[in-house]
Amino acid sequence: MHSSSNLVGHLCMITLPIWILIMGHCVHISSAKTPQRSTYIVHMDKSLMPSVFSTHHQWYTSTIDSLIPTSRLTSLEDPKSSPSSSPRLLYSYDKALHGFSAHLSPDERQMLETHPAFVAAYRDVKGKVDTTRTIDFLSLNSKSGLWPASNYGQDVIVGVIDTGVWPESRSFKDDGMAPVPSKWKGACESGQNFNTSTCNKKLVGARFFNKGVMAAEPKTKLIMNSARDVDGHGTHTSSTVAGAHVDGVSFFGYAQGTARGVAPRARLAVYKVVWDEGSYSSDVLAAFDQAISDGVDVISISLGFDGLPLYKDPVAIGSFAAMEHGVLVSSSAGNAGPLIGTLHNGIPWALTVAAGTIDRQFSGMLSLGNGHTILGWTLFPASAVVEKLSLKHDKKLSACNSSILLSKAASNEIIICDNMGMTLDQMDKVAGSNVAAAIFISDDPIDHELVGGVSWPGIIISSKDGRSVVQYAKSTKSPWASMQFQETSVGSRTAPAAAFYTSRGPAPSCLGVLKPDLMAPGSQVLAAYIPSAEVARIGNNIILSNEYAMLSGTSMACPHASGVAALLRGAHPEWSPAAIRSAMMTTADPLDNTRHPIKDDGDASKPASPLAMGSGQVDPNHALDPGLVYDATPQKYVNLLCSMNITTRQMLTIIRSRRYDCSNPSSDLNYPSFIALYDNKTKMLVKTFHRTVTNVGQGGGTTYKVSVIPPRGSRVVVKPQTLVFKKQYEKQSYSVRIKYKSNHKEEVSFGSLVWKEVGGKHSVRSPVVVCPSVDNSFGTQLKYTILLYELNDLYSNCVS
Amino acid sequence: MHSSSNLVGHLCMITLPIWILIMGHCVHISSAKTPQRSTYIVHMDKSLMPSVFSTHHQWYTSTIDSLIPTSRLTSLEDPKSSPSSSPRLLYSYDKALHGFSAHLSPDERQMLETHPAFVAAYRDVKGKVDTTRTIDFLSLNSKSGLWPASNYGQDVIVGVIDTGVWPESRSFKDDGMAPVPSKWKGACESGQNFNTSTCNKKLVGARFFNKGVMAAEPKTKLIMNSARDVDGHGTHTSSTVAGAHVDGVSFFGYAQGTARGVAPRARLAVYKVVWDEGSYSSDVLAAFDQAISDGVDVISISLGFDGLPLYKDPVAIGSFAAMEHGVLVSSSAGNAGPLIGTLHNGIPWALTVAAGTIDRQFSGMLSLGNGHTILGWTLFPASAVVEKLSLKHDKKLSACNSSILLSKAASNEIIICDNMGMTLDQMDKVAGSNVAAAIFISDDPIDHELVGGVSWPGIIISSKDGRSVVQYAKSTKSPWASMQFQETSVGSRTAPAAAFYTSRGPAPSCLGVLKPDLMAPGSQVLAAYIPSAEVARIGNNIILSNEYAMLSGTSMACPHASGVAALLRGAHPEWSPAAIRSAMMTTADPLDNTRHPIKDDGDASKPASPLAMGSGQVDPNHALDPGLVYDATPQKYVNLLCSMNITTRQMLTIIRSRRYDCSNPSSDLNYPSFIALYDNKTKMLVKTFHRTVTNVGQGGGTTYKVSVIPPRGSRVVVKPQTLVFKKQYEKQSYSVRIKYKSNHKEEVSFGSLVWKEVGGKHSVRSPVVVCPSVDNSFGTQLKYTILLYELNDLYSNCVS
Repeated sequence: MHSSSNLVGHLCMITLPIWILIMGHCVHISSAKTPQRSTYIVHMDKSLMPSVFSTHHQWYTSTIDSLIPTSRLTSLEDPKSSPSSSPRLLYSYDKALHGFSAHLSPDERQMLETHPAFVAAYRDVKGKVDTTRTIDFLSLNSKSGLWPASNYGQDVIVGVIDTGVWPESRSFKDDGMAPVPSKWKGACESGQNFNTSTCNKKLVGARFFNKGVMAAEPKTKLIMNSARDVDGHGTHTSSTVAGAHVDGVSFFGYAQGTARGVAPRARLAVYKVVWDEGSYSSDVLAAFDQAISDGVDVISISLGFDGLPLYKDPVAIGSFAAMEHGVLVSSSAGNAGPLIGTLHNGIPWALTVAAGTIDRQFSGMLSLGNGHTILGWTLFPASAVVEKLSLKHDKKLSACNSSILLSKAASNEIIICDNMGMTLDQMDKVAGSNVAAAIFISDDPIDHELVGGVSWPGIIISSKDGRSVVQYAKSTKSPWASMQFQETSVGSRTAPAAAFYTSRGPAPSCLGVLKPDLMAPGSQVLAAYIPSAEVARIGNNIILSNEYAMLSGTSMACPHASGVAALLRGAHPEWSPAAIRSAMMTTADPLDNTRHPIKDDGDASKPASPLAMGSGQVDPNHALDPGLVYDATPQKYVNLLCSMNITTRQMLTIIRSRRYDCSNPSSDLNYPSFIALYDNKTKMLVKTFHRTVTNVGQGGGTTYKVSVIPPRGSRVVVKPQTLVFKKQYEKQSYSVRIKYKSNHKEEVSFGSLVWKEVGGKHSVRSPVVVCPSVDNSFGTQLKYTILLYELNDLYSNCVS
Repeated sequence: MHSSSNLVGHLCMITLPIWILIMGHCVHISSAKTPQRSTYIVHMDKSLMPSVFSTHHQWYTSTIDSLIPTSRLTSLEDPKSSPSSSPRLLYSYDKALHGFSAHLSPDERQMLETHPAFVAAYRDVKGKVDTTRTIDFLSLNSKSGLWPASNYGQDVIVGVIDTGVWPESRSFKDDGMAPVPSKWKGACESGQNFNTSTCNKKLVGARFFNKGVMAAEPKTKLIMNSARDVDGHGTHTSSTVAGAHVDGVSFFGYAQGTARGVAPRARLAVYKVVWDEGSYSSDVLAAFDQAISDGVDVISISLGFDGLPLYKDPVAIGSFAAMEHGVLVSSSAGNAGPLIGTLHNGIPWALTVAAGTIDRQFSGMLSLGNGHTILGWTLFPASAVVEKLSLKHDKKLSACNSSILLSKAASNEIIICDNMGMTLDQMDKVAGSNVAAAIFISDDPIDHELVGGVSWPGIIISSKDGRSVVQYAKSTKSPWASMQFQETSVGSRTAPAAAFYTSRGPAPSCLGVLKPDLMAPGSQVLAAYIPSAEVARIGNNIILSNEYAMLSGTSMACPHASGVAALLRGAHPEWSPAAIRSAMMTTADPLDNTRHPIKDDGDASKPASPLAMGSGQVDPNHALDPGLVYDATPQKYVNLLCSMNITTRQMLTIIRSRRYDCSNPSSDLNYPSFIALYDNKTKMLVKTFHRTVTNVGQGGGTTYKVSVIPPRGSRVVVKPQTLVFKKQYEKQSYSVRIKYKSNHKEEVSFGSLVWKEVGGKHSVRSPVVVCPSVDNSFGTQLKYTILLYELNDLYSNCVS
């Protein structure tokens, strides 16, 4: 397993002009440094704890101590003074998992395995963060719907597990906020440049977890040993979930207006686990453990671990415990798209969020001497004046692939760069050249999305517009043009579309549950940031910072969904995490703002499959009143685990307790979506699903009728076709039988199954996907890894 | 005369990195193009108008028509259809002067001279605009003093003769303003991109005067044929006088805060006379003429004509008529300092305003690896991130005089540029180079003022700090530094100081009246601007615009003084222009914020002489209640003119009417300041002045005692030493005898004469200057011109 992980570790090639857009945190899976000792996450069977121990911590400490050979203990050496010469306990866990993490030698680890309560020990792994951008086009408003129904999330506490927070940001001001809910048991931990009084009624808690990273990097001094964010990612995601209203925000003149979070009155508790020096599963687990104890209602985690089975994945483990405590975990799908099977956080008991675009376009206006004006794409970060400059099209120069040629160009000319299918490279070459400005020609939505790479006065235009510009430049003796930057238009784009980078299902860790669950705004999201971090460039050398940053990625989509979940939690405190997720999924919108199926920017703008966007774009106001929900108790998830080809011990790392039973193993989880995998050879499939829905609408005779759009090549039979509910919270069950036969046109086909309320407004929709089976044994994850590698290489970018 | 004027015309060498700071309008005096016809300003003796004409316009038209030879009139040619073949009337003037402007051939001009009512005809000349920056550190506040006393200037209309206005600027919003005063008789003229509804309760009028420029440049189509400002200068000055309160303004992150004019509720009427295509005296006179008719209370004119005698100077001519109508004209001294005798608008009946610095500093913070931090000067217009980059000092490279060497420097290094006395040149070389950032070392206040030239990440530091930085760079193996931009500190600078560029007296046009009158903030003034004009640069190629611009010059000082005059007019509607000016002058502050004499940045920070700053820094709240004023009627100014060596006709161009008499010629104008010029050979002087002061304080026994600080080398005797006033508006006179004998130490010496109220708060101060005599015949203006030329060359800058 580690060999493949190390391969992933090589993917991170930062090409700076693009990083703004998809700012990958290059902390990929790789085993921690392998000195004599490594950090292990040790799962223990707590039911076997001897009664002599009054706390689990005592028990784990004693367990660690028992690993020290007697000869050593009797020596003069004080074991505590020389941590590298003795096993060291990092964290005791009790909520997220039962067990501890410790710095162990291979021998000690082997000794531990002989312990009667030993379940499993996994090497501490480094995680990665998905950086996304998000926006408000979710129709949240103060007149009706989820905002007023939830009082803007005022009583809800969201835990954000990330890079920490910049508490001085205007987005974390608590002006006019009500006192902190009494249920809150967390703390504002003091640390470097951070003290206990730094928190307020908005930022109610801040903690940091550094033992894993410090054990892995013993010689490194942490740059910022506190919950203070020195990266920006956590400040961005936190303010997206629950940032206060802040007026007068812009990104260098673009997107001017008010910044605010999805749940503007919700409380934030930040848990810093991502360090510049690395991000380790032991620290992530400690954050989950603490957040559950502290009393958060929702956990937002915009990071994921690629290529780990559920029983080793700290997000999966932490999420299970959270789910048991009624805490919904909202996680990011990853930025490894558009190829299928690239998703992480494919966790059946968590929410997995894909990233979509929004209807806002950052534009520049190109005005030609012949009176034509053309609106193009740009995010050039300054109010550049490009007025009546001569327009140049020259066969050699216009390839825009030679820095030398461009540096010799006249400084008062606008150069037209031909459509060579390498716009990002052309942008690079133009930056810092001698040209006054450049026009790039491209129809690629990826280029239009990566427009933050425009670090020299320039505008991207379509090839159709490009033809007319070139024609004008060639047909006139003294062609000229002007450019205007900092134009922002809203509503002008077809949106949402599935972002090209959003990671696709099926989830390698659990193929039988359709992931991602839904899509939220993830592209070009403006949110709070840390001062003095790069958010844009001018030329190659001038790096710019800003109070608010425009970022793209599933990391930005996740906190939007987390914010919606927080609002739902506020509006329906009695709902389980599964009910909240179901409400969000069954009301998600599969159509874009033109009322056509949402397109996939990663698939030539064809209709996006549920493998890209799940059930569709999250729709907060509809989620408030879903009619029916697909609920699931912890035992149901255990039944799913029992059906998987894993050992009891592996299962125990997740479920921790033997109080669950495995007598009803079932891969048929009561999930609000359907995925059926056909055999790659026969290309045939017959599969039956069973579902139970709970009426969360008004009581009294309500009838739902099913309506199915079968995936191409499939027959879908639902029984019964009608469900009648006599009272609120009543449950009804139905079955779905999918019969599929090879369809030569496409590998993945999809449709939907909708329960429509007769004479009512409720419509409960589930996507249905038929796709080829993928071997989910983790020996084959190499496959995804290589695909991922190629993709990264293609974009010369650290996308994950 | 024209030969010297043409010389001035060559001065304008725009070096772009600096133009931001002193944005000179390069419309110097030069004769209008000399085709067959030229525009002449023709002054006529209106008392000789035959009674057959019902209007002056009819008379002037008839006069023009009479110039067409009879042979031509009888031909078939329609004279109107071929303007170049017949003399053409541009404007008829009636308020500012009696006469007209017309496009005449030399022959026609000669014919005109034989007309019995002919007074004079002068060639239309191009003017120049002084661009300055200004700020609020004039202690205006809403609790006490001039703002509440004048109701913020609400009933006052200020005419601004300039480049027009950008009416959409937020500074011209009229939210909450009272209806336009009924006395207003002006108009909102429609024109290109400007219609009659463009004006509002703040911008009450807008007119444009283009006949002079169009006659001079008949083949040119005006870029913007309306009152719309396409330059920025007029928008800046107008908003400085009377801009509305606008929150959230900044100059690329510097000077963040609220923008507002000095008289925030006064009304603005703009008169556009400065065109991209040129600025002509005929148009300026038409603007004065119209503004007086429209009913403005104050005229603000931030432009001047160098090297013209009063009787040819359109500002002098227009101001005289304005003064007669009770309208104070506030004008700029020019940006031709620091050499003496460089001043324009040295008009005895107008206010002449010098430019000072303010107490605000635009800074960057330099942090060294050894823990030291240094605050330096910068206005680099972006939030550049320069974090822990290696610091380089290298003998060759650190001269920073080779673009080639700098382009080869490492892109991740901060280069230290040695103090070579050519910082501006070094900034130029660094801009667009490969270095990440630069440190410039200079103690020159001019460099600190011209910090807008920092177009690449960089900070200017003092030579003392420079030594410690170089020492650190040399003493360490891996020296590093960080920089932080966009720091603005207020109160940290000794201020005001006379700006190095402010033009100095004595006034070539009238040596016997001390000019300038006073100083107002002129350096680094933030005010409204037009969109898409250059206000800053990044590198050599990227030009930036901004809604508000930071400019420096006497053009920015003038509207500050105009605003104060408007407030005084509102508080004391009964005061004459001379009384308003006197109140501003006698209460002006000769001390800076450290309570030491104001320094001169153009003279090695020695105490500024009144030739640089007049009476001192304008002090609005004190001007509200000056105690005594030095008043002057129009006849008193005529007496001054009568004492000058000019002809009756020359005098008539100014005074227009024979109702004035010349029976009491006197060079001893009742002015609130004293200048005595000694003979250059004997270096000796005895001169007696007579003055009359009016008690504008409370009535009832008030006694003033004189207190004199004689200029070095002088004896000053005042008689009487005490003045007793029994009632309000009572007048008292006194004499001042100055006896001076050569002082080898200095050419210009100065002191003061102060009337202090006994047991009261009033203190009425006048500066006293003794300086060498200058030949004021205009044949010698070449002297100033050449000095000016050298200066311009020195700074490689268009300073006027």
